[in-house]
Amino acid sequence: MNEQTIQLGHGGGGVLSRDLIQREIVSRFGGGALKGLPDGATLPVPEGRFMVFTTDSFVVQPLEFPGGNIGDLAVHGTVNDLAVCGAIPRWLSLALILEEGLPLATLRRILDSVKQQADECGVVVVTGDTKVVERGQCDGMYVNTAGIGERMDGFELGANRVVPGDHILVSGPVGDHGMAVLAAREGIRITHGVKSDTGPVHRLVQAVREYAPMIKFMRDPTRGGLAAVLNEVVEDRAMGILLNESDLPFSTGAKAAAELLGVDLLQVASEGRIILIADATISEPVLKIWKSLPEGRGATRIGVVTDAKGRVVLETVTGGRRLVDVPRGELLPRIC
Amino acid sequence: MNEQTIQLGHGGGGVLSRDLIQREIVSRFGGGALKGLPDGATLPVPEGRFMVFTTDSFVVQPLEFPGGNIGDLAVHGTVNDLAVCGAIPRWLSLALILEEGLPLATLRRILDSVKQQADECGVVVVTGDTKVVERGQCDGMYVNTAGIGERMDGFELGANRVVPGDHILVSGPVGDHGMAVLAAREGIRITHGVKSDTGPVHRLVQAVREYAPMIKFMRDPTRGGLAAVLNEVVEDRAMGILLNESDLPFSTGAKAAAELLGVDLLQVASEGRIILIADATISEPVLKIWKSLPEGRGATRIGVVTDAKGRVVLETVTGGRRLVDVPRGELLPRIC
Repeated sequence: MNEQTIQLGHGGGGVLSRDLIQREIVSRFGGGALKGLPDGATLPVPEGRFMVFTTDSFVVQPLEFPGGNIGDLAVHGTVNDLAVCGAIPRWLSLALILEEGLPLATLRRILDSVKQQADECGVVVVTGDTKVVERGQCDGMYVNTAGIGERMDGFELGANRVVPGDHILVSGPVGDHGMAVLAAREGIRITHGVKSDTGPVHRLVQAVREYAPMIKFMRDPTRGGLAAVLNEVVEDRAMGILLNESDLPFSTGAKAAAELLGVDLLQVASEGRIILIADATISEPVLKIWKSLPEGRGATRIGVVTDAKGRVVLETVTGGRRLVDVPRGELLPRIC
Repeated sequence: MNEQTIQLGHGGGGVLSRDLIQREIVSRFGGGALKGLPDGATLPVPEGRFMVFTTDSFVVQPLEFPGGNIGDLAVHGTVNDLAVCGAIPRWLSLALILEEGLPLATLRRILDSVKQQADECGVVVVTGDTKVVERGQCDGMYVNTAGIGERMDGFELGANRVVPGDHILVSGPVGDHGMAVLAAREGIRITHGVKSDTGPVHRLVQAVREYAPMIKFMRDPTRGGLAAVLNEVVEDRAMGILLNESDLPFSTGAKAAAELLGVDLLQVASEGRIILIADATISEPVLKIWKSLPEGRGATRIGVVTDAKGRVVLETVTGGRRLVDVPRGELLPRIC
């Protein structure tokens, strides 16, 4: 059954490599720039625009988890990085590192997801690379996607624009992705289930484009979760952030899994959410627009920027206050 | 001595991650677009230009070999892919997958090489990503570089433009990279030594820009070597390629290693060479220009395009002819 798994020769540059690329890559992505497999894709860039360029490698384990797989993640992660920079995602690269012995069926399912999600997000996979390493030198497959987007006018984003009084919004429940992967990895069955939130956020950004000048900061809370992003915003600045525990959107499944595993959901990765910090006057209209979209249904305001220097504080439901610290130590490895 | 090696927490998104990025990445690449570590780099794109986009993952083993390391390779590989598309390389992304336990000293040497070679090639590392996997899940480190370049006017490249009578040039000896890596991996000591040819070819392309319209095809012969590239050019076409064995440039060290290991140098990767196919009338001026540059010193004409359908043939020094076939099977894994 050798033909049903990846072999070292699939990465050697010879006949096997060519066949794999033709059958699995060109068949899915072979229109347009990828046609003829040049060393690079030639892209028509609109005049007078800024482009945004980003990259992410994905090493998630397991490769497939409730709600998605490494292919979904590779598209969404890069699309979302472009989106939170205020860009319309346009082009993706796709670089695969495959482990000898990987079932071709797994590769195909993951590439199908890449194709489907790329189409869904309006991005085109225009260039790629495939390497194969020996059994035991990678965990099934690692995926890198770099992306290019076209920056929308009006967005001037930067944590340095955030000031006390600004509102902090999030586009939906946080932590589901990390908990779904962790639960899958640990083989935990949770009554209510928990599914990854992996998904694109570019429509959420484009939908609030009219408010761009008053949006100060956007970020997708991946590794380190909300805690990492919010601490980064106020670090070394004469301001803080106050979160209301009762406003924090967590799903039942994520809460159950987090309790079971002793994890703080504020530090857990999402892969389909935005944190947005904006002038208080636009938080209601932004939330209204977001809630009208499927991917923003759970959007809510979670807190405000204060003048308490460099601290993120959570006001608990019982009225107490606790510090939301920068995540330390190992956290949750191989979540993305 | 934990602090001297990569730990899982370096990839977790918390304090350790931040420290690693600040100390090792921002310290080297932190000017310009990387400053402030946004999710993506915003790039000013010249008006009315085409951009070229490419990606490559590097899994070479060993990480350091005679003549270079995985960092050199990651810069040159991507710069060269852009160059042979007729582009001036401009921006790179740098995505690292690190193995728990990787000595920080190794990481630093490799990042120093990335920085030095990027400067040397006039490209800027503007965005990046760092992941850490458990011990045994990767071979020290894997590196992905995607790149963006600005296409030069005049180049219209494609194997479909090649016609019988065209000349085939190569910018220097081929196969040294593959043989150096293989010899290092096998622990072979060769009298004359063999060093990787890893290096940039963008200056060679820019230097012959005036002849662009008559240059039909350029490729850097990496995996599969000359044999893979030349077979691709004539595949399914009513033409062939005739190489003269006496014209093939091989270094003494590469020849010695290839003989010892029973490898056909025509199938071995270079990482600092170009194969160029052009109208016969410009082959002399192109060679003259190339030879005036250090990286083109060993440039030579190796053959011609013929009307023998779909075959690459080598005329041996003894007057015989043998078929140069598409490489099959495993070839040389983990060369790049």
